Amino acid sequence: MREVAIIGVGMTNWGELWEKALRDIYVESALLAINDAGVDHIDSMYVGSMTSGIFVGQEHLASQLADYLGVLPIPAARVESACASGALAVRMGFMDVASGLNDIVLVSGVEKMTDVTGGDATYALGTAADQEYECFNGITFPGLYAMMARAYMDRYGMTREQLAHVSVKNHQNGSLNPRAQFPMKVTVEQVMDSVMIADPLRILDCSPITDGAAAAILCPLEMASKLSDKPPVKIVGTGAATDTLAYHGSEDLTVLAATVKAAEMAYKMAGVGPEDIDLAEVHDCFTIAEVVVIEDLGLVEKGEGKSAAESGLTALGGKIPVNTSGGLKSKGHPVGATGVGQIVELTEQLRGESGDRQCGSPKRALAQNMGGSGGSAVVHIVEVV
Amino acid sequence: MREVAIIGVGMTNWGELWEKALRDIYVESALLAINDAGVDHIDSMYVGSMTSGIFVGQEHLASQLADYLGVLPIPAARVESACASGALAVRMGFMDVASGLNDIVLVSGVEKMTDVTGGDATYALGTAADQEYECFNGITFPGLYAMMARAYMDRYGMTREQLAHVSVKNHQNGSLNPRAQFPMKVTVEQVMDSVMIADPLRILDCSPITDGAAAAILCPLEMASKLSDKPPVKIVGTGAATDTLAYHGSEDLTVLAATVKAAEMAYKMAGVGPEDIDLAEVHDCFTIAEVVVIEDLGLVEKGEGKSAAESGLTALGGKIPVNTSGGLKSKGHPVGATGVGQIVELTEQLRGESGDRQCGSPKRALAQNMGGSGGSAVVHIVEVV
Repeated sequence: MREVAIIGVGMTNWGELWEKALRDIYVESALLAINDAGVDHIDSMYVGSMTSGIFVGQEHLASQLADYLGVLPIPAARVESACASGALAVRMGFMDVASGLNDIVLVSGVEKMTDVTGGDATYALGTAADQEYECFNGITFPGLYAMMARAYMDRYGMTREQLAHVSVKNHQNGSLNPRAQFPMKVTVEQVMDSVMIADPLRILDCSPITDGAAAAILCPLEMASKLSDKPPVKIVGTGAATDTLAYHGSEDLTVLAATVKAAEMAYKMAGVGPEDIDLAEVHDCFTIAEVVVIEDLGLVEKGEGKSAAESGLTALGGKIPVNTSGGLKSKGHPVGATGVGQIVELTEQLRGESGDRQCGSPKRALAQNMGGSGGSAVVHIVEVV
Repeated sequence: MREVAIIGVGMTNWGELWEKALRDIYVESALLAINDAGVDHIDSMYVGSMTSGIFVGQEHLASQLADYLGVLPIPAARVESACASGALAVRMGFMDVASGLNDIVLVSGVEKMTDVTGGDATYALGTAADQEYECFNGITFPGLYAMMARAYMDRYGMTREQLAHVSVKNHQNGSLNPRAQFPMKVTVEQVMDSVMIADPLRILDCSPITDGAAAAILCPLEMASKLSDKPPVKIVGTGAATDTLAYHGSEDLTVLAATVKAAEMAYKMAGVGPEDIDLAEVHDCFTIAEVVVIEDLGLVEKGEGKSAAESGLTALGGKIPVNTSGGLKSKGHPVGATGVGQIVELTEQLRGESGDRQCGSPKRALAQNMGGSGGSAVVHIVEVV
């Protein structure tokens, strides 16, 4: 298996981009990554998108985007695993380079979510749950994660305020990220007073509806220094796993089993453990998700995720900074792009390019991206060479 | 790069399967392939599905299907390139095994198309075209392929009857396939008298709306004989390419450029040419498509595709049998499953298991699957070992 490096990254500002079409924001992010890498061509491309068919009425997306990027007739594939589609695109690109089939591979994600009405976006996102067993009976994602929060509070005695600290931390980080959708800082009181969505989750516990795109360029590690002047970031571990799509089928409502498994695979491949990770981007679609995920990744002990944001453990400058980008909560959550956006953040951090939110000189970082209420998870571990 | 073999295949009957859910037909096909291979587990899986989000309101499909197949928590990814989604799943599985990441990989495709009304199916399929530039202005796929037929007739003097012979041949083949949706034989007169859909294409020129699933098991070639008693079928070439999604953007309306390019890649990788192919399954979504595709694959000269069915060249027992399964026309076209269905047919032919439609003892075969009006194409070349 060939070793694989990231040599370029790019992303658009994330937000409500009503003046731009999906193809526009996609091309913008891809060109940023291509320019960052300094390559003059790409050999193949992968596009993560959750549900462009429902959001904008367009399937067959990878070919369309290859055309608008001006790279026809290269192989182009769209991959989908709900909100983990972006990280899955990274994984497919990794396989493409690792197998020897292609050398310079664009991995990318895009979602245009705000061109539909609110009700339609909720329907569209609901297709990531088990439609027949969950959504057709009335539940949507805030309700599913509210159940996770209730189960966790019951098991581990988490307070409502502790949950609010996750939002406060991620908005603090996002306030330092010029590409974030909601870069305002928030206080615990503001979170506690914000509109109730699904008890105990309030609107400031929820990631937003976002338009955005992100991209990265992969190549064989041995070619990296010839192609680019920037320090290559090596993908040392990739893991992907699945769990029951319907949340009621989970063996334990306070464990995201696919994340546990995907992390185990990635750690094993990388030959490292959670103690070797300098910072992480994780899938905080709701504040409770970050609490559970950092436990399932082994970054904190089970039951200790509840106090990690409150204590400053996961803050910028903390022992293990989590979601330095602002996370899904503040940076935004264009579902199919989110997993690639995490790779953009970590690559920039490992290169020391993160400006006011730079975390010293990190060597190794982890990205965890998941779909639905944990029905799929993809974990990557990256190291600066 | 590791060499990759197909060691098991399976598919459901294709047709209007109103009594079964998508997850049911998927599991049925996957278990058939697993049993055929004789393996006791799989390491990862790929699902090709074009638009389950629109057809049945379900994205995040691969995790759901991994659950219902009972293989959690293995990595599972859905891939999409419109009607080429199935072959793309085969290609992803190839990369997964070739890279060394996984050993026993399930590649599969599924589509449930008949649970929606006719109008919705037309809308759903239209998402494979350029929605903003094509479908929003009123055209659908029969119209696009009718333009291809008109352009080809104008350029190469094809008669309407010659087109009918493609349908006659494929229904003749399908009449020998117990899994075909429309196994009745048809005559040139019946095709010519059938209902006009988009001039010059009549209903018997068009592939149907179909429910169906198909699956195959891949593994490293060196493991094949340990895992299975059946002769392994080696994937010697894989090619994938893209072209403009909007048909009006094609450089030449009588050439499917992505098919030309994907075939070139697959032939080069396999170290063979069109003259070395014993039989082929090609993407006859409309009769005109088969005419153009066999030219673009180099199986006949440009301009000679028009008479290949009429002359018997591509018939069972002809020089180069095409669509021995009945093709999309007679076997059916569950869009995301079609490309995997082609691999099922070719594997059975190469093993000598095709019963009344067996083509002697073929050694090498080609599958060509495409999306939209040719915006993507995937070509595989397989050899019995």
